[in-house]
Amino acid sequence: MTHQAAIALGLSVRVLADEPADSAAQVAGAVVVGDYRSLDDLRAFAATCDVVTFDHEHVPGDALRQLVAEGVAVRPGPHALAYTQDKQLMRERLEALGAPVPAWRTVAGAEDLCAFGEEHGWPVVAKARSGGYDGRGVWVLDDAESARRLVAIGDLRLYVEERVRIVRELAAVVARRPGGELVAWPVVETVQRDGICVEVVAPAADLSESREAEAVALAARIAEALDVVGVLAVELFETADGLVVNELAMRPHNSGHWSIDGAVTSQFEQHARAVLDLPLGAGSAAAAHTVMVNLLGADTVVGTPAARLAAALADPRVRVHLYGKGERPGRKLGHVTVTGDDLADARARAWRAVGRLRGDALTG
Amino acid sequence: MTHQAAIALGLSVRVLADEPADSAAQVAGAVVVGDYRSLDDLRAFAATCDVVTFDHEHVPGDALRQLVAEGVAVRPGPHALAYTQDKQLMRERLEALGAPVPAWRTVAGAEDLCAFGEEHGWPVVAKARSGGYDGRGVWVLDDAESARRLVAIGDLRLYVEERVRIVRELAAVVARRPGGELVAWPVVETVQRDGICVEVVAPAADLSESREAEAVALAARIAEALDVVGVLAVELFETADGLVVNELAMRPHNSGHWSIDGAVTSQFEQHARAVLDLPLGAGSAAAAHTVMVNLLGADTVVGTPAARLAAALADPRVRVHLYGKGERPGRKLGHVTVTGDDLADARARAWRAVGRLRGDALTG
Repeated sequence: MTHQAAIALGLSVRVLADEPADSAAQVAGAVVVGDYRSLDDLRAFAATCDVVTFDHEHVPGDALRQLVAEGVAVRPGPHALAYTQDKQLMRERLEALGAPVPAWRTVAGAEDLCAFGEEHGWPVVAKARSGGYDGRGVWVLDDAESARRLVAIGDLRLYVEERVRIVRELAAVVARRPGGELVAWPVVETVQRDGICVEVVAPAADLSESREAEAVALAARIAEALDVVGVLAVELFETADGLVVNELAMRPHNSGHWSIDGAVTSQFEQHARAVLDLPLGAGSAAAAHTVMVNLLGADTVVGTPAARLAAALADPRVRVHLYGKGERPGRKLGHVTVTGDDLADARARAWRAVGRLRGDALTG
Repeated sequence: MTHQAAIALGLSVRVLADEPADSAAQVAGAVVVGDYRSLDDLRAFAATCDVVTFDHEHVPGDALRQLVAEGVAVRPGPHALAYTQDKQLMRERLEALGAPVPAWRTVAGAEDLCAFGEEHGWPVVAKARSGGYDGRGVWVLDDAESARRLVAIGDLRLYVEERVRIVRELAAVVARRPGGELVAWPVVETVQRDGICVEVVAPAADLSESREAEAVALAARIAEALDVVGVLAVELFETADGLVVNELAMRPHNSGHWSIDGAVTSQFEQHARAVLDLPLGAGSAAAAHTVMVNLLGADTVVGTPAARLAAALADPRVRVHLYGKGERPGRKLGHVTVTGDDLADARARAWRAVGRLRGDALTG
């Protein structure tokens, strides 16, 4: 999706891919196969680029700091990325900033989990400090027994949080240039199922202006304090008492995919502009309502991909985005967007199209 | 631009390019270097594709008919493309269809031009039957003397038309699937300078509903009669007496570039869907007004491309599309689009941005 945006601006995207079959490698013109954990591979790759950026947060910080020391423009920099690579570090930093976060505690052993559960009430949420994604690395613990079972797995670096009583989840997504110029998109509502985002509504329905402003100001403050360059997505819990920060991502993020079809400037173009220190585009919505629904791999695959695509496209308002990934149950294989003046209609169309991409129309 | 659209749908675009530096070859993942005039090159290329389509009309009809005879899916087919490859054939066919066309005549020598000029009044417009593009292959002849000078060049296959008194130029762009499903975009106004399109306004301002319907019906009738598959652009003259067909293009066309940022479905995606016989998307406008302005190569190049890009992007509403072509005076190097509720504002922004891409902001 970054390549799509880069083509328009005459930018050359070079991809460091694990293998030629990787999504980005399938479509980009310049692909280098290598290991993002290898300093040698990173160094050789970076030598061919003006700026290095990311589509995930797993490139080792040590390697990135070494590249920076050697003069490579790494954006966002390792000093900022550290807060997405270690979620406990993120919690500490956000708390120090005075940003609203859940009650939390470091965990050395089962007794810390139990003490936290007694103090804040069960259930509590244990999180892996790193490596989590799409619901992985997050455990809801109902009692001391489940806490001891989790710790018995061993080899987990954990922290623990209170379980926040959520009204709904929101995301405030902004982009920031090195000099500080910052542009926000409208705050969106994100809908999760089993810890995986399934739907995004932009802008979030019935969000007060003050709450919208509060969320954007919070994201802007975090971007500034952490010196983020590029896209920053701040996942938020909306509670009866206000906003609480859940997690951060410093790259184009699922909560911003709607912007490809629904905003003046997509998050992918904006990220490229930000990391290249080009002026940022408008983040304003291009339609009254945009609904994005993720296509998750089905347990049972029905029909050919071509037949499923044709079925989804039968609705002329549907925008389909496929990622070229192999089918696997629960895996994010693409997304669908529908824009329009009628939110309920847009939602219905988007969900129906995703069903068709999963083969629903072909089973009858 | 087709590759950008194809990425989203999970389609693999393979490009037959003259050389690796060609625009499409710079960004596509699968590029074959070859000669589009060579049957061998075409055959080898086609063997790797499900469907073959075009971004220009110069692939020889004989070669395409041979490919079709060998079972290759060529869309649009050579029987349709023939009318864009030979403009006299196009005139004959449109006249036979009863479509409104200028008075015209075949030309065997200077005497035919002179007789036509005497009959219809000078000036007249001589056109090359094939190979014309962006004002090339069109000559406005003021008198018998200029007619004789043109014919004296020799080696020109010409026909001649009356010079139509134009109120303005319009374009009706539609897409058609093999089975006949057809979707139109709003009719646009195209503004030419020295025979080259410089601006497109979508939808055309102050166009009556009946005139809009007439233009779309005309394009649909032509698409159907000529069995066009893919995008058909019908360039129209609007005169005091009604519409007159100027030329046809059977591919994504300059008059449809606005649709990337301004319509639900872009002409590039729609063309891909049509030639692959997938359901077509909505052609409706996504904004009240969209203005597209072409970036033509300047006589004198000012500043670096990066500085010019940054200057253009300083307006956050501006959408920039660069084609990766080498600078040459008058060459179409890209385009800019601005959408909005205020047509005058959108036009001003688009023209200013194009000026900046040409270096205007860097000369002061």
